[in-house]
Amino acid sequence: MSVMEMSHRSKVFDDIIKTAEAKLRSVMGIPENYKVLFLQGGATQQFAMIPMNFMQGGTADYVVTGTWSKKAYQEAQKFGEPKEAGNGLDRDEAYIPRQDELTLNPDADYVHICENNTIAGTKWDYTPDTNGVPLINDMSSCILSEPVDVSKYAMIYAGAQKNMAPAGLTVAIIRDDFLKEVPASVPTMLNYNIQVKGESMHNTPPCWPIYVLMEVLTWIEGKGGLEAMKKLNEEKAAVLYDYLAESTLFKTQVDLKSKSLMNVCFNTGDAELDAAFAKEAADKGMPNLKGHRSVGGLRASIYNAFPIEGVEALVEFMREFEAKHAK
Amino acid sequence: MSVMEMSHRSKVFDDIIKTAEAKLRSVMGIPENYKVLFLQGGATQQFAMIPMNFMQGGTADYVVTGTWSKKAYQEAQKFGEPKEAGNGLDRDEAYIPRQDELTLNPDADYVHICENNTIAGTKWDYTPDTNGVPLINDMSSCILSEPVDVSKYAMIYAGAQKNMAPAGLTVAIIRDDFLKEVPASVPTMLNYNIQVKGESMHNTPPCWPIYVLMEVLTWIEGKGGLEAMKKLNEEKAAVLYDYLAESTLFKTQVDLKSKSLMNVCFNTGDAELDAAFAKEAADKGMPNLKGHRSVGGLRASIYNAFPIEGVEALVEFMREFEAKHAK
Repeated sequence: MSVMEMSHRSKVFDDIIKTAEAKLRSVMGIPENYKVLFLQGGATQQFAMIPMNFMQGGTADYVVTGTWSKKAYQEAQKFGEPKEAGNGLDRDEAYIPRQDELTLNPDADYVHICENNTIAGTKWDYTPDTNGVPLINDMSSCILSEPVDVSKYAMIYAGAQKNMAPAGLTVAIIRDDFLKEVPASVPTMLNYNIQVKGESMHNTPPCWPIYVLMEVLTWIEGKGGLEAMKKLNEEKAAVLYDYLAESTLFKTQVDLKSKSLMNVCFNTGDAELDAAFAKEAADKGMPNLKGHRSVGGLRASIYNAFPIEGVEALVEFMREFEAKHAK
Repeated sequence: MSVMEMSHRSKVFDDIIKTAEAKLRSVMGIPENYKVLFLQGGATQQFAMIPMNFMQGGTADYVVTGTWSKKAYQEAQKFGEPKEAGNGLDRDEAYIPRQDELTLNPDADYVHICENNTIAGTKWDYTPDTNGVPLINDMSSCILSEPVDVSKYAMIYAGAQKNMAPAGLTVAIIRDDFLKEVPASVPTMLNYNIQVKGESMHNTPPCWPIYVLMEVLTWIEGKGGLEAMKKLNEEKAAVLYDYLAESTLFKTQVDLKSKSLMNVCFNTGDAELDAAFAKEAADKGMPNLKGHRSVGGLRASIYNAFPIEGVEALVEFMREFEAKHAK
């Protein structure tokens, strides 16, 4: 019987979910006073759960540095009076606002950031000082890509489908003392306390992605853990960023001090040429290089599992394309 | 690249999700005026979504015939004033109340039933007449086990993990005209209209279970469709129920006119003997025969994928056990 068929109440699956959690705690260095939850619904469901559980009609600070942090901010508006505490999309270059550019409210129930911005191509290069206000970090697209000091956050969450497991699993890591009583009107499945009490099995969890996460964590351990993953990811991204620095055709529209290691955004400055590049690359076996429709341009998503050889092949093709099209 | 890795926005996955839906429509005979949604969170999340979307502080009728319909009824109490319209757990025998035993409110926003009751071991043997009030059917544990006249229901839903696909997918089938405007306070992921608009891809869907569902539907087509599945399931269940009818040791505590084909509940009337049987059976490679802790006794769950040979082996062992232990 495979993990896809067995009961989630079986001894075998109980070992799997406990091992997955233990390995995640070990690989990420999650302190004992944090709960680890395996949930469903993606980060988008967390966008609602977080204000329903932790804002409860009050206020919270959202830093809007990308499409997803903006969606989180908009969703929170259903459940109270969140404020935009900073923005990284209001210049020509996508960027992460500096500490002194943030407008933080000391009475906020929490501050919410999205560490890596898949569409903008930026990543927080520092942890904002919130002066004691609990900090929540959406790490959907950078979790397990490098070490993280979990103790800086009241909560970390991530959709699993980038660096953890197949789509259908969402991981939430919440500090014990941040959990609070929730009104009875919150749906059972959206109440973190109930998920904590049920040890992620209030109902049937997404067993298969949890099993794959366990295996992915074993793979990361074999690579040497998150320090080693960081080195690999920096090497991979450098192949692209180094080429972009010297290219006369391609450039990036990202503030390089907060560049993403996972999503490298670039363009030729000419939408038609960008489209021609994406098409030719796809014909050569490199699909999915078109930037998100909301920003255009081109984007290489190079998550943990993507090999450096793939990035090298891409840059080789970019050089060829540049030779043909450079003015 | 496998389905577990590819983008849900890729052409390949677009074909998969459309094929899965088309096959489900074909196999179940879902009329064109019904939407098919692939969601997350299990039936438990539907227990909240249904009253949030369709009751909205009003009232609805819940028939409580098992643990899950009771949970659905309790969850609905967060969002309005639902009423218990019938009960199948208030006698020694688990049963499905007859039409004249139901107390239906003509002003209810809907009537909710759970067709197959996994823990009680019962199944609705008729479709209640709701006098025009929309009928919602939780088919989590019997969907695809036999033909269903979808047009009798305003909505059908099912967690996929019994007869459809690995855990992590929930299917909802909703008649167009039953969908209604939802207040802004409903979380985005819990709003059926948004899921309809996003064609089940408002965010990343559970791609792998959707792929497996497509494959399972192909398997059912190969077997001859739902009429053939019904015949197979009746044959399988008959092996057990026929034996139970003649056994002097084992009996079922289920009203046989509404017996489940998926979950056959039985017991010896002696909790210690039940436990001994479950243990000996597990030692013989037949685990998971212990009844749910809330009702005790024994239970054989024989979903679509379970072979008749397994039921025959179980009955053979029950005969041996009876020979040893019959008074």
